[in-house]
Amino acid sequence: MSNQLYSTILTAKKTKKLTWKTIGEKIGHSPVWIASVCQGMNSAPLPIAQKIAALLDLDDEVARQLSECPTKIFPQTVPTDPLIYRLYEIVGVYGQSIKQVIHEEFGDGIMSAIDFSMTIDRIPDSKGDRVQIVLNGKFLSSKVF
Amino acid sequence: MSNQLYSTILTAKKTKKLTWKTIGEKIGHSPVWIASVCQGMNSAPLPIAQKIAALLDLDDEVARQLSECPTKIFPQTVPTDPLIYRLYEIVGVYGQSIKQVIHEEFGDGIMSAIDFSMTIDRIPDSKGDRVQIVLNGKFLSSKVF
Amino acid sequence: MSNQLYSTILTAKKTKKLTWKTIGEKIGHSPVWIASVCQGMNSAPLPIAQKIAALLDLDDEVARQLSECPTKIFPQTVPTDPLIYRLYEIVGVYGQSIKQVIHEEFGDGIMSAIDFSMTIDRIPDSKGDRVQIVLNGKFLSSKVF
Amino acid sequence: MSNQLYSTILTAKKTKKLTWKTIGEKIGHSPVWIASVCQGMNSAPLPIAQKIAALLDLDDEVARQLSECPTKIFPQTVPTDPLIYRLYEIVGVYGQSIKQVIHEEFGDGIMSAIDFSMTIDRIPDSKGDRVQIVLNGKFLSSKVF
Amino acid sequence: MSNQLYSTILTAKKTKKLTWKTIGEKIGHSPVWIASVCQGMNSAPLPIAQKIAALLDLDDEVARQLSECPTKIFPQTVPTDPLIYRLYEIVGVYGQSIKQVIHEEFGDGIMSAIDFSMTIDRIPDSKGDRVQIVLNGKFLSSKVF
Amino acid sequence: MSNQLYSTILTAKKTKKLTWKTIGEKIGHSPVWIASVCQGMNSAPLPIAQKIAALLDLDDEVARQLSECPTKIFPQTVPTDPLIYRLYEIVGVYGQSIKQVIHEEFGDGIMSAIDFSMTIDRIPDSKGDRVQIVLNGKFLSSKVF
Amino acid sequence: MSNQLYSTILTAKKTKKLTWKTIGEKIGHSPVWIASVCQGMNSAPLPIAQKIAALLDLDDEVARQLSECPTKIFPQTVPTDPLIYRLYEIVGVYGQSIKQVIHEEFGDGIMSAIDFSMTIDRIPDSKGDRVQIVLNGKFLSSKVF
Amino acid sequence: MSNQLYSTILTAKKTKKLTWKTIGEKIGHSPVWIASVCQGMNSAPLPIAQKIAALLDLDDEVARQLSECPTKIFPQTVPTDPLIYRLYEIVGVYGQSIKQVIHEEFGDGIMSAIDFSMTIDRIPDSKGDRVQIVLNGKFLSSKVF
Amino acid sequence: MSNQLYSTILTAKKTKKLTWKTIGEKIGHSPVWIASVCQGMNSAPLPIAQKIAALLDLDDEVARQLSECPTKIFPQTVPTDPLIYRLYEIVGVYGQSIKQVIHEEFGDGIMSAIDFSMTIDRIPDSKGDRVQIVLNGKFLSSKVF
Amino acid sequence: MSNQLYSTILTAKKTKKLTWKTIGEKIGHSPVWIASVCQGMNSAPLPIAQKIAALLDLDDEVARQLSECPTKIFPQTVPTDPLIYRLYEIVGVYGQSIKQVIHEEFGDGIMSAIDFSMTIDRIPDSKGDRVQIVLNGKFLSSKVF
Repeated sequence: MSNQLYSTILTAKKTKKLTWKTIGEKIGHSPVWIASVCQGMNSAPLPIAQKIAALLDLDDEVARQLSECPTKIFPQTVPTDPLIYRLYEIVGVYGQSIKQVIHEEFGDGIMSAIDFSMTIDRIPDSKGDRVQIVLNGKFLSSKVF
Repeated sequence: MSNQLYSTILTAKKTKKLTWKTIGEKIGHSPVWIASVCQGMNSAPLPIAQKIAALLDLDDEVARQLSECPTKIFPQTVPTDPLIYRLYEIVGVYGQSIKQVIHEEFGDGIMSAIDFSMTIDRIPDSKGDRVQIVLNGKFLSSKVF
Repeated sequence: MSNQLYSTILTAKKTKKLTWKTIGEKIGHSPVWIASVCQGMNSAPLPIAQKIAALLDLDDEVARQLSECPTKIFPQTVPTDPLIYRLYEIVGVYGQSIKQVIHEEFGDGIMSAIDFSMTIDRIPDSKGDRVQIVLNGKFLSSKVF
Repeated sequence: MSNQLYSTILTAKKTKKLTWKTIGEKIGHSPVWIASVCQGMNSAPLPIAQKIAALLDLDDEVARQLSECPTKIFPQTVPTDPLIYRLYEIVGVYGQSIKQVIHEEFGDGIMSAIDFSMTIDRIPDSKGDRVQIVLNGKFLSSKVF
Repeated sequence: MSNQLYSTILTAKKTKKLTWKTIGEKIGHSPVWIASVCQGMNSAPLPIAQKIAALLDLDDEVARQLSECPTKIFPQTVPTDPLIYRLYEIVGVYGQSIKQVIHEEFGDGIMSAIDFSMTIDRIPDSKGDRVQIVLNGKFLSSKVF
Repeated sequence: MSNQLYSTILTAKKTKKLTWKTIGEKIGHSPVWIASVCQGMNSAPLPIAQKIAALLDLDDEVARQLSECPTKIFPQTVPTDPLIYRLYEIVGVYGQSIKQVIHEEFGDGIMSAIDFSMTIDRIPDSKGDRVQIVLNGKFLSSKVF
Repeated sequence: MSNQLYSTILTAKKTKKLTWKTIGEKIGHSPVWIASVCQGMNSAPLPIAQKIAALLDLDDEVARQLSECPTKIFPQTVPTDPLIYRLYEIVGVYGQSIKQVIHEEFGDGIMSAIDFSMTIDRIPDSKGDRVQIVLNGKFLSSKVF
Repeated sequence: MSNQLYSTILTAKKTKKLTWKTIGEKIGHSPVWIASVCQGMNSAPLPIAQKIAALLDLDDEVARQLSECPTKIFPQTVPTDPLIYRLYEIVGVYGQSIKQVIHEEFGDGIMSAIDFSMTIDRIPDSKGDRVQIVLNGKFLSSKVF
Repeated sequence: MSNQLYSTILTAKKTKKLTWKTIGEKIGHSPVWIASVCQGMNSAPLPIAQKIAALLDLDDEVARQLSECPTKIFPQTVPTDPLIYRLYEIVGVYGQSIKQVIHEEFGDGIMSAIDFSMTIDRIPDSKGDRVQIVLNGKFLSSKVF
Repeated sequence: MSNQLYSTILTAKKTKKLTWKTIGEKIGHSPVWIASVCQGMNSAPLPIAQKIAALLDLDDEVARQLSECPTKIFPQTVPTDPLIYRLYEIVGVYGQSIKQVIHEEFGDGIMSAIDFSMTIDRIPDSKGDRVQIVLNGKFLSSKVF
């Protein structure tokens, strides 16, 4: 997906005063997933891509491009944006602990990042609201061969 | 925290046939957090550190060390272990999308990785059980100064 | 924020013979923070963004862009500019010492870089004036969970 | 300076229940600077080194080593410890802004990291105490030649 | 898994004049997979681990260690050994082509490296025998959420 | 080969609703190899290049360029695209095991990545179809000199 | 400073058949320093910048830009140009020796790279002329605080 | 050369209260060159190596090792020690300028880092003494072939 | 040298159906050296540059540019093109051995890469023709100073 | 191959006052190849390995180890030793030119680094003797498939 397409989508989204959340609600899919599709980090099946394009008043060529399998390039090995870095830091600080807890529960294998979904919620808290991110991936057992 | 201490803890844990989960239940704290303390990625308040040491039949010097503020070194900039890499990949693929969804909800700022907690659960599923990781961090608003 | 916007702002600032310090005084906010907003390293609440734009005789679209949450990309992992490198060197030389002194005073945790402010001053000195940079961030205690 | 010497110092410091702050008060020098000397990131003039050694009940060979010019190696290009990373992040996010504000005030040059001192203080705050780090370095003007 | 264990296994294997191929035939599993288990790049279910240990006249502690979930560290980001580099080069030269051909056949998703097996064979050829490596992984479809 | 040529080829391929597989069948060569030629990772002998160009209704200049020896640049040392990363991970996890199994069978040397071919197939499987990639390279014996 | 400005300067310099040496003689400053100013690695006080611009028949806007404080970006961490690499190699091979000899003479501190000048000369030699580069920087003593 | 040998030399040098400068004067060679030999960054002809060993009361095996051709490994791609970094910074800031001035004077080629010598001197200065480093290398003309 | 100039040269070379070898024969210089000049990795004395330009029907400005001292930038630290990588691999596999054999023959020093030439030849061989690359550089003895 | 084995070989070689050249002459193989075998960068067929061991008065276990297929690790991505760096620089400066000259002569493919040999000779020259390194590798044609 080209940068130009992404700009077109962002401009349309601003013009129509839409958020990823409202797009998600109208389309019936996760805001974070739709955002990832529009950034070229995922592809949408054509009918969903068409709904996204329609909502943004963009043409069918946009829908077609959103349904193509993108090459996913992370722009930075270590992300510098403070919000994204905190996620990277959590992987660094807790990665080995997560690994051990999952292995104790499931045996050797991984949590899939492909058969995977995610939700993001605001958790009200009197000391300051909290961000809750739920990662949900199928456990894949390492194959014995 | 020294590697030697970590080995001592792992050996004690195996000898006593404990898992992080059972240690967590007995201590009343999260398994993944206790594992991170024992790996030198977090520190425990002394009374909790003493409970961990007692459960493992280790002496007070161990407790004291678990309560010291460790220097947290991630051993690899890009983790190669498949389980940990999948987490890194999720940050790479979804980081920008997570950022946008959080900013739409909360404004500019971050999800703290310090005022932060995490749970890991098994979600039964007929097509194969799933791993659910819940990240929960306080939203910190960027300061205007 | 685009590079083009940054150029526009710098050109306007030169034309009007403004410095970050004078902009800061007129707006009532810190010069270094305003500079960071104009470089896409921070966002300003819309009313402040509008004041900045007005001072520079730039239109509301500029104000709107200054109020968007930017993705903060550091252009160099190790900065080469001599002035910025000296700051990096201070972190390298004193980082571990700062860490220990803070932990002794506050316990485990960090100085926030988000709930954070900074001032820069000239300290007259007969052997040559000095630069004083004051960093001020909320202490965040590592959560026990 | 060897790692072994550093361990010896840390052990002596723990045994005598000293903090860098109390050592600083007794020696009449900055806690963060003394900590940096003991970590091999700075050297102390011999009389001061002897006071440090004496306070820790360590012999003259230790004092001699603390007074040698160390080779300063930063162990990580990008620090991973959360406390130290936040300092690195501040350099990344604000480095260019600091540069511009200093240049407007002083002209071309740098803040020295050698003719330099630092203090760390706790600033009480009803919303949570804050860490204040003051960096103070001589301005060095770029030479015209 | 420790390097020491790996040395013990290699020594036992040499003493008994076994190859990975003969071990594979006796155990009833793939030679390359058994080699990967013995190098700490995979784990074996305990009964298989016990067969491996028995074949090498090693004790049950070895079997237990071969059945633990290892942390998989690749020693080099870009491998320098000529044989392994050629595999890396194939990924570099053909990766994008493989991606497109798989996406045309299966849609968006990946070939799993966990639900995965591999065989290595000698293909006789009059111009010089050939190595044939067969990679076989489950296709995982990217989840729409 | 220029990016512009690659775009031209991809556009022509889409317009004519061709896949690499159908192009392969019509040309009588491997889809993955043809894709690699069109991406500038291989060159085709002129007659084959002309067939590819003809099938895409592109002119002789395209054929000529497809027959030139390209400089093969891998865009990323560690690929981030999930599909390509899995291949990289397989090299990391199994590289040393593959090396040992090949050496046991053939002696010292390598599997050529130049006198080399590859096929990709779908293997039907009731638990989910599988991707099978067959790598086939001439064994080259290390020269004694 | 923009690349465009640098091109403009180089073109003017060629057209007027000037060398850095002749410019240096006419301006009364060092050739290597003037070259560094024109490359955006240093700034010149406005009157000197005006003399440089006048000599090259360039306008006052050029002078103004040459007097701005540039952000100094080294294009390569390890320089590949053979002439520049040899300088890098000298730092690598002799850096630690230079450090020890300076510390023996001056105590702990550095040779400033800011309060610094340099000359380059040809030293006639019957076995082949030699390049002599003289580096001259103020010694800065590490501050005790 | 082993680290152990280097330690032996440094210890002997301290015991005998020698500096590189005094060793240089007694041996009749440059202090910085002798220091580089003792650090394994250069080799000395055997007679000179024997003089160095004799002066330090070390045996002939030390002399023999100092006369062997060492493999020169720079421990850090970008040096972090402040004194050595300043030298690296000078190469970064002035490298391109030095290159142009040398090419104008000598034509295409390099200053040799092998047929090369160096002196370090203290230059008294009322505003603070200065370090002067003189680099002197044979100009090697790029060969036309 | 600009990329545009290189393209111009390549286009002219193709149009005139010249190879580096035929250009070399006509000019009386090495094909690989002429290719390196045209790629901006070497400069040619003006009369030779003019011969190259004339042969390609290009104007004097091209000749002038080919005679300028270029800044030599290697595009990749580790080359990925298979042909160039094999050369890099030879340096990696045999570098230390080459070093020892040269030192045994010549003493401490290097083979110059500046006072250097190279030839490339086809060596007929019944088992497949071979490429022979001859590197020829002046031995430079490390200076004792 | 272990570092310990390499030390043993080097010690034996010094004790017996052998050079790689004399070992090569006695064994009837290339000095640089034998050196590479002894450094763990190649393996020797067992009979040759036994001759090497015998010449050095080392036992059969050494011979056996020299005949094992080593994992070839280059210690540095960019070599810093001046002699080895010059070889790396030649690949960087001339790699693309070598590539084009070989492709013009042989078509697409590579010079093998496995079916490969090398000689090193001293070429007497009145202006200073020269090092001549001859690389000789089989041309491998890229396979069309």
